[in-house]
Amino acid sequence: MEDVFAEIITIGDEILYGQITDTNSQWIGKELGKIGFRIIRKVSVGDKREEIISALEQAEARASVIIMTGGLGPTKDDITKKTIADYVGDELVLNQEVLENIKHIFKVRNREMNDLNRSQAYIPSRAQVLMNTLGTAPGMWIEHNNKILVSLPGVPHEMKKIMNETALPQLSTAFPTPYIHHVMIKTIGIGESRIAPMIEGWENNLPPYIKLAYLPRLGQVRLRLTGVGPDKESIVSQVEEQAKALVKIIEKYVYAYDNEEVESTVGKLLLQKKHTLATAESCTGGRVADKITDIAGCSTYYLGGIVAYSNQVKIDQLGVDKETIERYGAVSEQTAKEMAEKVRLKYGADYGISTTGVAGPGGGTAEKPVGTVYIAVADEKGTEVKKLNLSEDRQVNIRLTYSAVLDLLRMRLLEQAS
Amino acid sequence: MEDVFAEIITIGDEILYGQITDTNSQWIGKELGKIGFRIIRKVSVGDKREEIISALEQAEARASVIIMTGGLGPTKDDITKKTIADYVGDELVLNQEVLENIKHIFKVRNREMNDLNRSQAYIPSRAQVLMNTLGTAPGMWIEHNNKILVSLPGVPHEMKKIMNETALPQLSTAFPTPYIHHVMIKTIGIGESRIAPMIEGWENNLPPYIKLAYLPRLGQVRLRLTGVGPDKESIVSQVEEQAKALVKIIEKYVYAYDNEEVESTVGKLLLQKKHTLATAESCTGGRVADKITDIAGCSTYYLGGIVAYSNQVKIDQLGVDKETIERYGAVSEQTAKEMAEKVRLKYGADYGISTTGVAGPGGGTAEKPVGTVYIAVADEKGTEVKKLNLSEDRQVNIRLTYSAVLDLLRMRLLEQAS
Repeated sequence: MEDVFAEIITIGDEILYGQITDTNSQWIGKELGKIGFRIIRKVSVGDKREEIISALEQAEARASVIIMTGGLGPTKDDITKKTIADYVGDELVLNQEVLENIKHIFKVRNREMNDLNRSQAYIPSRAQVLMNTLGTAPGMWIEHNNKILVSLPGVPHEMKKIMNETALPQLSTAFPTPYIHHVMIKTIGIGESRIAPMIEGWENNLPPYIKLAYLPRLGQVRLRLTGVGPDKESIVSQVEEQAKALVKIIEKYVYAYDNEEVESTVGKLLLQKKHTLATAESCTGGRVADKITDIAGCSTYYLGGIVAYSNQVKIDQLGVDKETIERYGAVSEQTAKEMAEKVRLKYGADYGISTTGVAGPGGGTAEKPVGTVYIAVADEKGTEVKKLNLSEDRQVNIRLTYSAVLDLLRMRLLEQAS
Repeated sequence: MEDVFAEIITIGDEILYGQITDTNSQWIGKELGKIGFRIIRKVSVGDKREEIISALEQAEARASVIIMTGGLGPTKDDITKKTIADYVGDELVLNQEVLENIKHIFKVRNREMNDLNRSQAYIPSRAQVLMNTLGTAPGMWIEHNNKILVSLPGVPHEMKKIMNETALPQLSTAFPTPYIHHVMIKTIGIGESRIAPMIEGWENNLPPYIKLAYLPRLGQVRLRLTGVGPDKESIVSQVEEQAKALVKIIEKYVYAYDNEEVESTVGKLLLQKKHTLATAESCTGGRVADKITDIAGCSTYYLGGIVAYSNQVKIDQLGVDKETIERYGAVSEQTAKEMAEKVRLKYGADYGISTTGVAGPGGGTAEKPVGTVYIAVADEKGTEVKKLNLSEDRQVNIRLTYSAVLDLLRMRLLEQAS
């Protein structure tokens, strides 16, 4: 089997000028990787005819499959469809099936259809329609110069549905590919250059078809193992074996795998133990609760929490002793400790966790500069408090604090499991 | 003045395979746009020598400025620096200034330096160092074939600091550019194809150097006006005039401008009125609080909130009547109403807002399928409840609910202002 190369093109001035985050190309890259395609390049161009054509020509020289998103809306700044038709030497014709779908959508939404909506039913005559049941812009599959060109609407949930229902299955059938297996190992609390010498011996013994990459991120380093081979079973088991050997070396720094975040690891541990959790947040302002409730099914172990932003709320609603705040300050070891303990008792949870700190940009003092944060975990055996010295950036501080407090809880849950 | 074209290249297999979100290219695009550069293309390639070289060659054919990020870490999967040196016909030499910076960083962090760290001080001999005070991988500025190549580390906060401190100021000086002014107008509750005919008359009268683009997004449509001209003052005032005229036509759908989200609009209105807010969340699980507290200075108007995930917490902590939940269900108009009212009273806030719904994937019934959500806003004059019928996707439901409840509050604040 030969490698199948794919290229992703996203269209829109708003992507070039950073007015939106291009999550489409990320998602598509991940999905194509899963079915064994090699992604050769990702390109974003503006809503300009000559740029779209140049990107298509260059992609065709490199890849067998080109996936494009964006530029299919009803309004006049969208020129993709006409450009694609010209590029493949075709013309736009009214597609009855697409028109019916648009009519249906307007009927369900109880809205009046206009000429702009009707124009969305015109597609290149040779294109196979990839039906978009969630919106009015159709997906298209076009074969040209022995390459496959898939054009999809830019609205993420529409694009994903079309990919999952038709484009990905058709691509899998058209190109049987060597199997690619990734394992991502996520570590926290250790830097890239400290990990490297620890795992050098293991790394030097990797077979040539399994590669290691370091992906550093705010306070964390992720290690990605990628194996490529003709036999799915063999490559999966080899990569998993290597991952296990790697984890053994750096065990205490590993907090999650693959798409998991620390909140899913914590969720699984709580589920296993049939224990419950409550949160008391100051500087994270709801981020911890938000991340915990991103996990479907969290209602089994997560009872709820308090966002105690003002001191009055900390005292009246959470029950922190007024004197504690007056004597030590809202940002202190003592307040963090009481917050975790009080929320645990108040909510009748097995674990209570808390955050309090100076997220910034304002509120810093010489003694407690921006970035000073306390986190705590309380259970029936006691309370552990940790001080963090973070950055000057509010967003960075919120993110680091949320992952640190969930990691503190993870460590506590692990200790008690062993 | 001629247009200055820039291209952005991000390097890393993890970007191609969607294992990380490429926020660097988004941020760089936005910043280059602000200093008047035209972004011609964004490209992501893997950690492969020949791909990096091909991307550089193609970028050089299109752009005067090439900004690259990634591939500068200490470990062996990073080959960017050597590839750049070869590409510009140069060799890597030890740079004393960079070495001192690395030593300093290790000293401050109280960690041992190793050979991998030392290797980061090698850079192409012709490169100007763009000092990275936050990390060990240096930024580099290289002139080649009359083009400028800027290579930056991939860690976002390091990259941003180098851009802000040295690369952007140097680029502004090197290329005086025509001024580009953007205004983004964000609407909610109306579709692209309904806006288009409403504003057609206005759009047809736009001067040729001011362009309109539609950027649809989950439940929202953003309208971007872009003006380009030699004179800053004139282009800014013309774009702002046109934006004002546009907003007049669609006023009640406009919820925010530019980088603002609905939470900043709401924050400003609350600040103006010197009013306070408390939140009671079920299905959004803290997202509303999290978004409100993303805004620096929110402690002036945001007191805090309750994440009432379990019914027991809704009853015991929030004070919702047990009978209300038993008779109407936790997902009901009545429960949403009580949640908003109770949190307002409990926290002594001027406004209370609430969310309760079936976010999914579990928990749906025939009567209340996944996507059924109630939101409410309470103040001293009364409580407004709204029912939403959203999607089957948990993440989509959380996002739509958070923006809907903040928009409901925004409308209430506006009504009372008028």
